[in-house]
Amino acid sequence: METVRVALGERSYPIHVGAGALDAAELYRPHLGAGRVAVITNPVVAPLYLERVRAALARAGAQAFEVLVEDGEQAKSWASLERVLDALLAARLGRDGVVVALGGGVVGDLAGFAAAVYQRGIGFLQLPTTLLAQVDSSVGGKTAINHARGKNLVGAFHQPAAVIADVAALATLPERELRAGVAEVIKHGFALDAGLVDWLEANLDALLARELGALAHVVRRSCELKAAVVAADERERGRRAVLNLGHTFGHAIEAGAGYGKWLHGEAVAAGMVMAADLSVRVGLLNAADAARVRALVLRAGLPTRGPALAPERYLELMALDKKAARGRMRFILLERIGHAVVHGDLDERLVRDVLAANVSPATNAATR
Amino acid sequence: METVRVALGERSYPIHVGAGALDAAELYRPHLGAGRVAVITNPVVAPLYLERVRAALARAGAQAFEVLVEDGEQAKSWASLERVLDALLAARLGRDGVVVALGGGVVGDLAGFAAAVYQRGIGFLQLPTTLLAQVDSSVGGKTAINHARGKNLVGAFHQPAAVIADVAALATLPERELRAGVAEVIKHGFALDAGLVDWLEANLDALLARELGALAHVVRRSCELKAAVVAADERERGRRAVLNLGHTFGHAIEAGAGYGKWLHGEAVAAGMVMAADLSVRVGLLNAADAARVRALVLRAGLPTRGPALAPERYLELMALDKKAARGRMRFILLERIGHAVVHGDLDERLVRDVLAANVSPATNAATR
Repeated sequence: METVRVALGERSYPIHVGAGALDAAELYRPHLGAGRVAVITNPVVAPLYLERVRAALARAGAQAFEVLVEDGEQAKSWASLERVLDALLAARLGRDGVVVALGGGVVGDLAGFAAAVYQRGIGFLQLPTTLLAQVDSSVGGKTAINHARGKNLVGAFHQPAAVIADVAALATLPERELRAGVAEVIKHGFALDAGLVDWLEANLDALLARELGALAHVVRRSCELKAAVVAADERERGRRAVLNLGHTFGHAIEAGAGYGKWLHGEAVAAGMVMAADLSVRVGLLNAADAARVRALVLRAGLPTRGPALAPERYLELMALDKKAARGRMRFILLERIGHAVVHGDLDERLVRDVLAANVSPATNAATR
Repeated sequence: METVRVALGERSYPIHVGAGALDAAELYRPHLGAGRVAVITNPVVAPLYLERVRAALARAGAQAFEVLVEDGEQAKSWASLERVLDALLAARLGRDGVVVALGGGVVGDLAGFAAAVYQRGIGFLQLPTTLLAQVDSSVGGKTAINHARGKNLVGAFHQPAAVIADVAALATLPERELRAGVAEVIKHGFALDAGLVDWLEANLDALLARELGALAHVVRRSCELKAAVVAADERERGRRAVLNLGHTFGHAIEAGAGYGKWLHGEAVAAGMVMAADLSVRVGLLNAADAARVRALVLRAGLPTRGPALAPERYLELMALDKKAARGRMRFILLERIGHAVVHGDLDERLVRDVLAANVSPATNAATR
């Protein structure tokens, strides 16, 4: 078991990474308080891990009940949030209660937001069971639901009391979701750490084969990288935005295709290729380094092109993205491998060129 | 113009109190940022003050648009929150935008919560136009909506960037709402400041006659008292709970009667009389001091008895109140005039005695 610490003053918390972590009652115990525990999960994850988590919570002395939400991105909805809050109130969970998010990024975002607003905020634990959630979404306190107008438009910053990332749980992850998680690892490498990019180029096969050592390495390293950024800029007033490499294009892809058609990591993968291309066109990055982005995305079995939507639709969706400041689009670009920067004021023609070069021809399926 | 400061580190903010404050562009200017401004108000307040606020915002250099919500407590609903967020998104308000709450406590709670969760939190200004909002709800960062199971069960702590309290705006307040606001002033006196109780006993007539000096005195003093408590315990982990004097009974009254039938301040007034009676029965307070609570509530034209509901209904509603910890009811009691304390573990029979003594006979109208 390894532990990464997110340094946020009185909101600091540990991220425990290791095989079998879900069963370790001592990891839960310090964070449970005197009240009951609501485990938020879904019908796919529950049969796999709920009993083990319940048993660990019982050993830690907690009384738990579960709340099931839908599987998939549609669970990040207004209606779903309302149902979770209704269930917590029906169970009379007190302010000393704790919410446990057991599942992937969707469950974590939804359960975390419910914990943020339930009785003006109660504690919560992240138990991520997907690679994407372990390397990215469970860390940093961003919680949200989606809106018809875009992803994550309603939410809160609400840090968990702890993250318990069991890499052995990734054994049951569908192949497509594993690869979607690898996209966020690739993102951490290109945005923050050239050494991680080198490691991925050398060890991608072991990672895709789910060797526990490789999984633990990328989870721990991703959490270290993200924890440092979050500690310096919790509320994304500046530097934290670099974690959104690939996300301006990516959110437009997800929304344009219809939520749930593309996995978030798949959209980010194609978005990173587009962001790298844009970085070259702006004159920040050399073409050889952009080629490394595309090559790694391709080797990971991830899409390198966005779906066939009209450029105007892309631009419209990107303008809605909440990273748009003062009506202008902001992009996260690469200055070099391992160093992303926020770029504020771009010529829209360059963005159109990127779309023309990196979007599937319209003869393909419209949504993919 | 007088200014009270709420000391909360990087979340510190000023409360400006004075006649004509709504027109003072310089009070808005430091808090507007680069984005647009969404003024949340309702059809009762808008005709009275919206144009003046728009004009002041324009002089401060801001581009504003308004979002109207229903009048009354029903606006603190899930559906209403969703409509406000939809309107902000439809207007493409950015993260650099600001929400302005123009109205009473309902508008402030709803608009503040919308600002708390819109794009994970944007800035907001409180422009309270009722006495209750000026002396209490606009200060301290509590935002929330109601739920069928109880008041303020879903919400956030989200401090405003500033509060601009124009006591001249209280000239248009309906008499019943003025008195409901006086209830919270009385609460601040009995919970925190014997001197304010003395002042009220001497000057209640001037206050009810809306003399500007009297209004400014109680708004400023209430804000000072509340600011000190909030600065010491922003998230109500301890001492801040004393501001809830009368609220455990009061919330049960509001919910039991049906939201909107009783004004919040009316319910708190009757709740304070009950809390004072309970304080006597517990042996904390002498009967003469409890009589001062009842006498001042009565002189202010506020109800001293709860509506005719079965004791079991009261107890059920109070158990749901979010101040219930570990399934036990917590009460805020008076140790002496000007000093409230949190009392954790009460004999339910004493609460039943209080209900028997302070609830209207069932022959009265069931809801009032």
